[in-house]
Amino acid sequence: MKQSLLILPTSKDIPHSATSKNAELLSRGGFVKQESAGVFSFLPLGFRVLKKVEKIVREEMEYVGMQEVLMPELISKINFETTKRADTDIAFHPSEKYILGFSHEEIATPLAKEFIKSYKNLPLALFHIQTKFRNEKRAKSGLLRGREFLMKDGYSFHSDKNCFNNFYQKVIEAYFKVFKRCSLQSYKIEAGGGIFSENKSHEFSVVCDAGEDIMVFCQSCGWAQNSEIFNNRDNKCPTCGEKIEQKKCVEVGNIFDLGQKYAQDFNLYFTDKEGHKKIPLMGCYGIGVSRLVGVIPEIHHDKNGIIWPLNVAPFEVHIISIDQNEEAFLLEKELQKKGINVLVDDRKESVGKKFADSDLIGIPLRITISKKTLQNKSVEWKKRAEKYSKIIKKDQLIKIIVDFLKT
Amino acid sequence: MKQSLLILPTSKDIPHSATSKNAELLSRGGFVKQESAGVFSFLPLGFRVLKKVEKIVREEMEYVGMQEVLMPELISKINFETTKRADTDIAFHPSEKYILGFSHEEIATPLAKEFIKSYKNLPLALFHIQTKFRNEKRAKSGLLRGREFLMKDGYSFHSDKNCFNNFYQKVIEAYFKVFKRCSLQSYKIEAGGGIFSENKSHEFSVVCDAGEDIMVFCQSCGWAQNSEIFNNRDNKCPTCGEKIEQKKCVEVGNIFDLGQKYAQDFNLYFTDKEGHKKIPLMGCYGIGVSRLVGVIPEIHHDKNGIIWPLNVAPFEVHIISIDQNEEAFLLEKELQKKGINVLVDDRKESVGKKFADSDLIGIPLRITISKKTLQNKSVEWKKRAEKYSKIIKKDQLIKIIVDFLKT
Repeated sequence: MKQSLLILPTSKDIPHSATSKNAELLSRGGFVKQESAGVFSFLPLGFRVLKKVEKIVREEMEYVGMQEVLMPELISKINFETTKRADTDIAFHPSEKYILGFSHEEIATPLAKEFIKSYKNLPLALFHIQTKFRNEKRAKSGLLRGREFLMKDGYSFHSDKNCFNNFYQKVIEAYFKVFKRCSLQSYKIEAGGGIFSENKSHEFSVVCDAGEDIMVFCQSCGWAQNSEIFNNRDNKCPTCGEKIEQKKCVEVGNIFDLGQKYAQDFNLYFTDKEGHKKIPLMGCYGIGVSRLVGVIPEIHHDKNGIIWPLNVAPFEVHIISIDQNEEAFLLEKELQKKGINVLVDDRKESVGKKFADSDLIGIPLRITISKKTLQNKSVEWKKRAEKYSKIIKKDQLIKIIVDFLKT
Repeated sequence: MKQSLLILPTSKDIPHSATSKNAELLSRGGFVKQESAGVFSFLPLGFRVLKKVEKIVREEMEYVGMQEVLMPELISKINFETTKRADTDIAFHPSEKYILGFSHEEIATPLAKEFIKSYKNLPLALFHIQTKFRNEKRAKSGLLRGREFLMKDGYSFHSDKNCFNNFYQKVIEAYFKVFKRCSLQSYKIEAGGGIFSENKSHEFSVVCDAGEDIMVFCQSCGWAQNSEIFNNRDNKCPTCGEKIEQKKCVEVGNIFDLGQKYAQDFNLYFTDKEGHKKIPLMGCYGIGVSRLVGVIPEIHHDKNGIIWPLNVAPFEVHIISIDQNEEAFLLEKELQKKGINVLVDDRKESVGKKFADSDLIGIPLRITISKKTLQNKSVEWKKRAEKYSKIIKKDQLIKIIVDFLKT
């Protein structure tokens, strides 16, 4: 893609509105535009990253057998009254009749009721990737805490505890895979149920200074707990007795054992093998899709800008053309034939501006194509440029790129 | 995919809530679930159709050079006050500060302002595929008129009338392609600007009895106009003088010449070649993505259910297995290798139920694999079944399927 045509308003200045590292990096790199506190537009490059993260999440959810649906955002208030969640502070009320979805148990449970009649229909698991709305008082962490954000939420239904536990374990593995594919090291930590469940839950968190949570964890055995529910005065691991540590972290996913609460609220029953009417067990599984787009730059950046991990990068290769657009487009064409996505900086800008923007944008592999621009520089520079342009023929270069991207 | 595992609550009964043909067909076929008036969940099959329509729209928009972004749904009220559209009846107000996006000129224009500085940045065109919210008083037409619906809306910015006209014409061609790929015959008709523009606009409409609009058109020369702005008492075509007709239709797309209104409202300027400050011209281009998922079944159905056109079908092939699941899964595997998506009805249901459901779902190509079930039928039936099972070997069958899907 030609950079000259792309809506990519990079900036060397830190925007006034950016109150977090991710908002600063993503705004300066032209990935997002903050519209109001906690509300962002995704510009073309940011949209590409969002879609890549979405794809990773989708693939891992399909792998564990969740079926993709799309549930609406306008949810009848009566559904939330049924579960006694209509009065929560975080809900937006677009009219007397509706609440904007801050979570979707109130839609997913009646939806499953349409289909679940007998034990033969269980287990059942569905997910959607949909906008969520939460009226956050302090939305100051860029994409880490939005009033409007994209979330994957899944819901599972089971006939017995054993089946639930098996699935819950499969989702834990899928979550670790999702975060690993996003190049994030995540910890599974024990937490409370919040407004979602009376049971305990598990959070998946990434160590990150911008995080609003604190996790208490044991380097020795891997035990971890949210500091909110941590209740242990001697600072020793309750599992192995070793010394525990505390670190700031950001939650990127969570899974809840919902028990029978929502099934009970909506009178969801199934008939078991013996013909008895029973209430299924439910789990719920969230991943902050747009939040991940914020967490990744928090972790992967240097002083000059973002450094995107390959799996979620908006493009794989950035060709900086220095007066060599035709050559650059030829190389782009060859790489595209091999399924590699390329951004070509074909703009009439100074070399310095091109490199600075490239640093900000952070596409993992950068190729510079130049010739003439070095003519006015020192003889030594010219020699070096000629040396490389002789050594690396196009075929060689393509092979090097393909090999690099493979590993 | 195994139908036994799929959330697909088909029904032979017309649901109480269905007040339109598309809502009836889509609900009975297990594609959608109505959550409240004008608000739907897309179940797995419906979601697949929605994604196929979305893909067609995306491809044609990218083809004319529109860049995909994602603008938010929570829009600051102040943006709508700037354009004097804050008081429209159709807006939902989730809080004092926000309006839920019913259209996105108020976000797209300030967004473009971040990027457009000079004539070199023009033309510029962006689009997104995003949920829209409109507080419709009468939301009784299934997916044809929703309170929450998925829309593609694009916005273009131009330095002069000539450039605008060229792009507008390109979008017209792209729109005809989109609707053709959805197997819909569309008419481009003249209409008023509504709350979007003081200028005229063009609607793309499909002749459909469920439509709420009426178009006046001339079979002879192709001229067409929305009856709302039609003002011609002698019922003769204003272009060629032939007799005109009237038909009910449903609007599937619209394009507006926005002139300089929104650019003026948001002080969007560019510097022209001579260094003068100028206001760009804007166009806006909508397609009702989820509405299309409703219009297609309105047009393509028979008394037994939907008949999906191949391009938007949830699966290409439906294999009805009658006690031959292993054979059916083998065939599915072979077809999937060739990139063909297959649904296998592997359920323990009666033959009658399987065929009735298959008729409801409407996957374009149906293959029945049977053997034993015909043993108790008449000798004549048995003979015919044996004859076919002998004639059509698996390789032959695959070839027939591939050939059919190609044409």
